[in-house]
Amino acid sequence: MVQVAILGFGVVGSGVAEVLATNESQIERKTDDLVRLKYILDVRDFPESPFADKIVHDFSIIENDPDVSIVVETIGGARAALEFTRRALLAGKSVVTSNKELVAEHGCELLKLAAEQGVSYLFEASVGGGIPIIRPLNQCLAANEIEEITGILNGTTNYILTRMIRAGLSFDVALKEAQQNGYAEQDPTADIEGYDACRKICILASLAFGRHVYPRQVPTEGITGVTLADIAYAESCGRKIKLLGRAIRQADGRVCAYVAPHLVSEENPLSGVEDVFNAIAVRGNAIGDVMFYGRGAGKLPTASAVVADVIDAARHRDAKKRMVWEEGGDDVTTSPDSLKSPWYLRGQGVCARFPTAEVLHRTDAPEEEQAVLTAPMSQTELEKALAGIQPVSQFRVLE
Amino acid sequence: MVQVAILGFGVVGSGVAEVLATNESQIERKTDDLVRLKYILDVRDFPESPFADKIVHDFSIIENDPDVSIVVETIGGARAALEFTRRALLAGKSVVTSNKELVAEHGCELLKLAAEQGVSYLFEASVGGGIPIIRPLNQCLAANEIEEITGILNGTTNYILTRMIRAGLSFDVALKEAQQNGYAEQDPTADIEGYDACRKICILASLAFGRHVYPRQVPTEGITGVTLADIAYAESCGRKIKLLGRAIRQADGRVCAYVAPHLVSEENPLSGVEDVFNAIAVRGNAIGDVMFYGRGAGKLPTASAVVADVIDAARHRDAKKRMVWEEGGDDVTTSPDSLKSPWYLRGQGVCARFPTAEVLHRTDAPEEEQAVLTAPMSQTELEKALAGIQPVSQFRVLE
Repeated sequence: MVQVAILGFGVVGSGVAEVLATNESQIERKTDDLVRLKYILDVRDFPESPFADKIVHDFSIIENDPDVSIVVETIGGARAALEFTRRALLAGKSVVTSNKELVAEHGCELLKLAAEQGVSYLFEASVGGGIPIIRPLNQCLAANEIEEITGILNGTTNYILTRMIRAGLSFDVALKEAQQNGYAEQDPTADIEGYDACRKICILASLAFGRHVYPRQVPTEGITGVTLADIAYAESCGRKIKLLGRAIRQADGRVCAYVAPHLVSEENPLSGVEDVFNAIAVRGNAIGDVMFYGRGAGKLPTASAVVADVIDAARHRDAKKRMVWEEGGDDVTTSPDSLKSPWYLRGQGVCARFPTAEVLHRTDAPEEEQAVLTAPMSQTELEKALAGIQPVSQFRVLE
Repeated sequence: MVQVAILGFGVVGSGVAEVLATNESQIERKTDDLVRLKYILDVRDFPESPFADKIVHDFSIIENDPDVSIVVETIGGARAALEFTRRALLAGKSVVTSNKELVAEHGCELLKLAAEQGVSYLFEASVGGGIPIIRPLNQCLAANEIEEITGILNGTTNYILTRMIRAGLSFDVALKEAQQNGYAEQDPTADIEGYDACRKICILASLAFGRHVYPRQVPTEGITGVTLADIAYAESCGRKIKLLGRAIRQADGRVCAYVAPHLVSEENPLSGVEDVFNAIAVRGNAIGDVMFYGRGAGKLPTASAVVADVIDAARHRDAKKRMVWEEGGDDVTTSPDSLKSPWYLRGQGVCARFPTAEVLHRTDAPEEEQAVLTAPMSQTELEKALAGIQPVSQFRVLE
């Protein structure tokens, strides 16, 4: 029998308890063993919960119980979660998490610790909610040199942009609606400023390219600067505005990673990814383009990814896990400044600065407003050509 | 060192040899071991090939060489491929294949044989070309009861339908173009009649639902009956015609599996899958809807999936593989006749038979032509309501 402890009885933690209970026979068939929940660590009590008798308040009970071989960390953040993860691994337990912040900041250290202890550290649920992406990247694409990853990695911002595009809501109104529907937190900063997408592209880039990419190395721009005017101009040229996290392998082996809004052609399948859905496009040197699509968040999808990792940890207790990447450093990444792409520019005077650019139009535009799509150029070249003028909006166009 | 033999030096087999050579260091990093090609079995010689020195003509050389631990079968068909696969497994070698016909007809037997011998039988490349789908279905979705699989599983027919929709080509002209571009075989029967998609949905259904579903249990209709008139009517109601393979778990535990053209709403991401791309949508009870998308065929994408399996077999030589399903039988499947869906009907008199149905229009329709979308009903109910009239076209609408 495999005994499991869950740390944190919030949305994801309670979903994991539910999925373990609901799909018990399915899980037993897959593991050839019984998987049973023994403890749930939380500061609160949950007297009404069917899992009330599992609740404990002291991590050392779990740490010191040799029967617990798998710890599910759904606390979030990088403080208590980091301490408990380290202690669980040191106690010889595998750890499964949905905590993208912890993996993005400390993944290399924790994977190394897990390898030293002969246990697993698994985090399928940290990127793309329920979408299988970490394992396919690590295993199915093992035969490929990965060239590029481009993804819609945050469901909240994709919902807001979809509502702006489809219903003509302003950013503020769409954000409020997302909050009312439970798709955005009361403090939406991590989503709308792109920090959440940044953590996820860090995890994907580290795994795909083999060295840790830290959030501080990834220039990140959110969607607060996207207006209905920009959405109308994008539509006028057959494109949609999407917040993308990207990681591209450069010829010198460095990784160019960044998060920013892009204009995406309606021919590109990423443009059709709407509402809270996520999609991750991966390009490999043999496989070409593949895309993974599904709900990027939500209690049960995320819990389902966590439980898949629990099953994996239960099945491979004696087998070496090879998911690992090397420590990072300043030589891992390169600035996106030198990455060439066409640019969408909106503001006074942009037509004069880019006389050969494609001029865009929208109805009801103020008389002095101008918008263009430039030829492909780097950010450095763009800034030189702008020669001091500052567009109101300036987004890359995904090629 | 892990030594590999390839059976059949055709498109996929030569691609596997190339990917093994090109991505040697990547593969070594993933396996912690050297993976080397030792033999290629083919009836022909290839004096100009860089792999000419690996060619052998007698399978028993491979069978009797204890250094060969992995055999890659890319012969196709279910005759020599079946014999060599059995003999390789019996000789204690893992077998990796892209051969959907063999897996669809003999998967249960070969998986059982592999398990008895303590080796692996892997077939990621048999469905969706390079798209990772078999492994995610088996592993990542292990925490879910799978409810439904619906996929665009054949690139050739999707290319033909895309050209009919986008360029207004007739079926015959689009087929000819596909043949000229190398997307369709000279004898296109297996693709256009839906047999290829049928084999793939059999493999997916067997894996997802745990018992072998045989092609003869899966009613299969190809795309030869799809006309430009049908495509125009579909477009008039915001839909595209796609050939879908479906497997749906019914309340009684049986599997309803079939292959047929469907009208798919433009809101559904499957409708945006164009050209030779494939996409497989999976619904699980916890994960909700996920979709896997990529090139469904082609030398390097398929080879990349084969090599990923080779890496997997090399890494898990001592670990038990659990991919397995039980023998099939008449109690596994149920007829799609009782599956309710709206129907698209084109022909004389359909408006009178379905007075409450949505009437469709297209330009330049012959005067007596009628087309409707009915309310959801089973095929049995539909036939009763038709009361003897025979529509020219009759396709389900995907809900």
